[in-house]
Amino acid sequence: MPADNIQLDDNGKLLHFLSIEGLNQSILTEILDTAESFTSVSERNVKKVPILRGKTVANLFFESSTRTRSTFELAEQRLSADILSLNVSTSATTKGESLLDTLQNLEAMQIDMFVIRHRDSGSAYFFAQHVGPGVSVLNAGDGQHEHPSQAMLDMYTIRHYKKDFSQLRVAIVGDILHSRVARSQIHALNLLNTAEVRVIAPRTLLPVNTESLGVQVFEDLDQGLKDADVVIMLRLQKERMRGALLPSEKEYFRLYGLSQDRLNLAKPDAIVMHPGPANRGVEIESSVMDGNQSVILQQVSFGISVRMAVMSMIVGQSGLQTGDES
Amino acid sequence: MPADNIQLDDNGKLLHFLSIEGLNQSILTEILDTAESFTSVSERNVKKVPILRGKTVANLFFESSTRTRSTFELAEQRLSADILSLNVSTSATTKGESLLDTLQNLEAMQIDMFVIRHRDSGSAYFFAQHVGPGVSVLNAGDGQHEHPSQAMLDMYTIRHYKKDFSQLRVAIVGDILHSRVARSQIHALNLLNTAEVRVIAPRTLLPVNTESLGVQVFEDLDQGLKDADVVIMLRLQKERMRGALLPSEKEYFRLYGLSQDRLNLAKPDAIVMHPGPANRGVEIESSVMDGNQSVILQQVSFGISVRMAVMSMIVGQSGLQTGDES
Amino acid sequence: MPADNIQLDDNGKLLHFLSIEGLNQSILTEILDTAESFTSVSERNVKKVPILRGKTVANLFFESSTRTRSTFELAEQRLSADILSLNVSTSATTKGESLLDTLQNLEAMQIDMFVIRHRDSGSAYFFAQHVGPGVSVLNAGDGQHEHPSQAMLDMYTIRHYKKDFSQLRVAIVGDILHSRVARSQIHALNLLNTAEVRVIAPRTLLPVNTESLGVQVFEDLDQGLKDADVVIMLRLQKERMRGALLPSEKEYFRLYGLSQDRLNLAKPDAIVMHPGPANRGVEIESSVMDGNQSVILQQVSFGISVRMAVMSMIVGQSGLQTGDES
Repeated sequence: MPADNIQLDDNGKLLHFLSIEGLNQSILTEILDTAESFTSVSERNVKKVPILRGKTVANLFFESSTRTRSTFELAEQRLSADILSLNVSTSATTKGESLLDTLQNLEAMQIDMFVIRHRDSGSAYFFAQHVGPGVSVLNAGDGQHEHPSQAMLDMYTIRHYKKDFSQLRVAIVGDILHSRVARSQIHALNLLNTAEVRVIAPRTLLPVNTESLGVQVFEDLDQGLKDADVVIMLRLQKERMRGALLPSEKEYFRLYGLSQDRLNLAKPDAIVMHPGPANRGVEIESSVMDGNQSVILQQVSFGISVRMAVMSMIVGQSGLQTGDES
Repeated sequence: MPADNIQLDDNGKLLHFLSIEGLNQSILTEILDTAESFTSVSERNVKKVPILRGKTVANLFFESSTRTRSTFELAEQRLSADILSLNVSTSATTKGESLLDTLQNLEAMQIDMFVIRHRDSGSAYFFAQHVGPGVSVLNAGDGQHEHPSQAMLDMYTIRHYKKDFSQLRVAIVGDILHSRVARSQIHALNLLNTAEVRVIAPRTLLPVNTESLGVQVFEDLDQGLKDADVVIMLRLQKERMRGALLPSEKEYFRLYGLSQDRLNLAKPDAIVMHPGPANRGVEIESSVMDGNQSVILQQVSFGISVRMAVMSMIVGQSGLQTGDES
Repeated sequence: MPADNIQLDDNGKLLHFLSIEGLNQSILTEILDTAESFTSVSERNVKKVPILRGKTVANLFFESSTRTRSTFELAEQRLSADILSLNVSTSATTKGESLLDTLQNLEAMQIDMFVIRHRDSGSAYFFAQHVGPGVSVLNAGDGQHEHPSQAMLDMYTIRHYKKDFSQLRVAIVGDILHSRVARSQIHALNLLNTAEVRVIAPRTLLPVNTESLGVQVFEDLDQGLKDADVVIMLRLQKERMRGALLPSEKEYFRLYGLSQDRLNLAKPDAIVMHPGPANRGVEIESSVMDGNQSVILQQVSFGISVRMAVMSMIVGQSGLQTGDES
């Protein structure tokens, strides 16, 4: 899969947003800083700026999604874009058109930005390689590859609560093997010079080359949580249970579920994160999810600002100007 | 179910719009007056005012609906809101999230107003009890409990054609037992001091405590229609036929269907209303539905103004200011 | 089916856009000229004009569609309309309402324009006959009758590349019998005084009265393509295969599929068009579809301008005024 050359132009400006891999610390920090300026937009009375006014954004969700799709749509509305949201599973592809045909037809409609979620790893790259100049692609999750806007809202959340990555121990718990979220998080945490990135999972849910990703691997949850500043729980896809990868939900919770007792092994001020939707009682105890160390709902809020930031950087505006209210 | 304390603030201002029960005559009259100022908006050339500009309204329809959902969406657009419409049956709840999780995640997206339709009675109250300060909930129909915006557009229609409630005989005909529309109408008619509210239905379609609602009960349609000023026909849910509650459609029409002959028992200038969608030939004869006493389509039109009124009262603007065109 | 009297007012102004049949050369030319002024809108940085500001357009797609529906929605957004898009198959009609009831209820919501696609020929006319004054209907495809906006974007494409219709040989290839697109194209090409309109199809896919439409009929593809300036391929509905009308896909391609070799029989600068979605390898070879004589994607682009043109003519604005940016 191509890496650093397609997302950035010769001056290092963001053209597409496809994966954290291939980006650099400076871009990641710019996204976080820009998002910070937009957080105030979402909180003020008139939540709108004209940055994407007269631009058209097409949301192509080949996989269903509530959280990601809704926050992208709200980000687009708050940037004043025109929006074309296609429920792609029920549209032209059912008439036998290929993904490339669908893309080219939409591009002919003068779409400025595509937000795409697709079950195939690499689909967002495929799109980006085929759109013409001036058209951008944002990856909203491609197969088991990456989910970069989720990772950036996670980084935003961590920076918001913990400030300095270089002092942090971050533990990611769960199905690393199948998780595009984990993959993007690990790249981002490393680019931002996180002191220690841990992954905690049973062997069956770890990629073979995990250590090469620059993380410490723990199979034991208690050991992995020790002194962590940030605990990120991953969603357990229930279909994994049906395969040979895992025993029962109950057994999974016993071994890898986050209870309050376990959380107490981490630092007293550790924060708990989850990309959602969570399986209460499977990977996380309800009381922890709703407890005062949980910042799970704040992640959702920050997701809008982060998506606004990425889209406005792509059109060449780094954040909010004075008097920028539309 | 909680009543008067949650919908109004200490100054009697509207915070949520959940049920007619618990509101008072002054609020109902303010809704009608405000709606009147918006009727002109829908009729003029540019049907838009900036009252909800930069606010976000989420439409959560767990039950399908064309009329109610479309008129809410149009009301929101005409108030210049940003709109997030979720087809909730196919979204996160299918991934096993609870209603409360869905709500909290959406609230984290800085939604200002929720419009919710749900098959469970009390769901709108449940939402209102759980949202934070500054966030409002509008009930677009909850189970067999209430459908307050429908009742208010009905009140608007009655006042438009008949002016003074204190002189009116209003007959509601059909499945009172299962009808959230009827429940809301009865409360509203009583709050507005209607001279006489009649319900006409077979025993099997009447709640046990009907009389305690402040209505006159008739099992005979002809008697109930006598000298009525307003005749409101309810939709007959066809699934009731399959239960033991009712005989055939034909038999129902013979006993409780509104024909022109029967309508002639009411006052000569009586108006005929129906919340829609109507079963022609079951609860109402086609010629009556399309006849010149029918104001059924006018109800739909007024529905937009009434919904605009409620939403603008909630954000603290009672109707249209001069020069308020966006 | 009514023809010329309902689409135009007494001064020849466009009221509805239902079929090419019944329109005249002057209106068609005005549509093309107006569309030309809008092409620049879609290409500029802020793709928006306020021509439909405060107007409401309802998109009623009883048949699914990506291309037509998306380009209509984008045209409406770029004209700044309020938009109500109903997935009609899953809405009120499932509760047993008739088409007319649905229409009247929507009309009561002060819709200014209806865009309707429906499997029944004549449905758009039916709508136009029943809406009140000031409300317009646009046909986005009705059964096997007409698809006039598709035909006009095709005319726009031809004029763009070939200028003068009076010198052109245009060949339409494929399932003429079932094609609303072909029917609209033939009317439009004749109204615009095309030198020669050819249809090329097996007998089983030709209407009985084809010659009376003012076209030359060819059963042999090679003969029909000879010296053509424009080659329009029609989509082959695969369900035709299952009937007795056609042999296999492979056999169809051998007889009526457009390969590069065959295209070489047309003029060297002939353009290739297709309304989409195309069946690659059935009616058209992939290399031709993606080749440099193909203008298939340009058709899609022009579709937005043409739809903007029709809608703005209906509201009484013939194209773009200076300073018309919203």
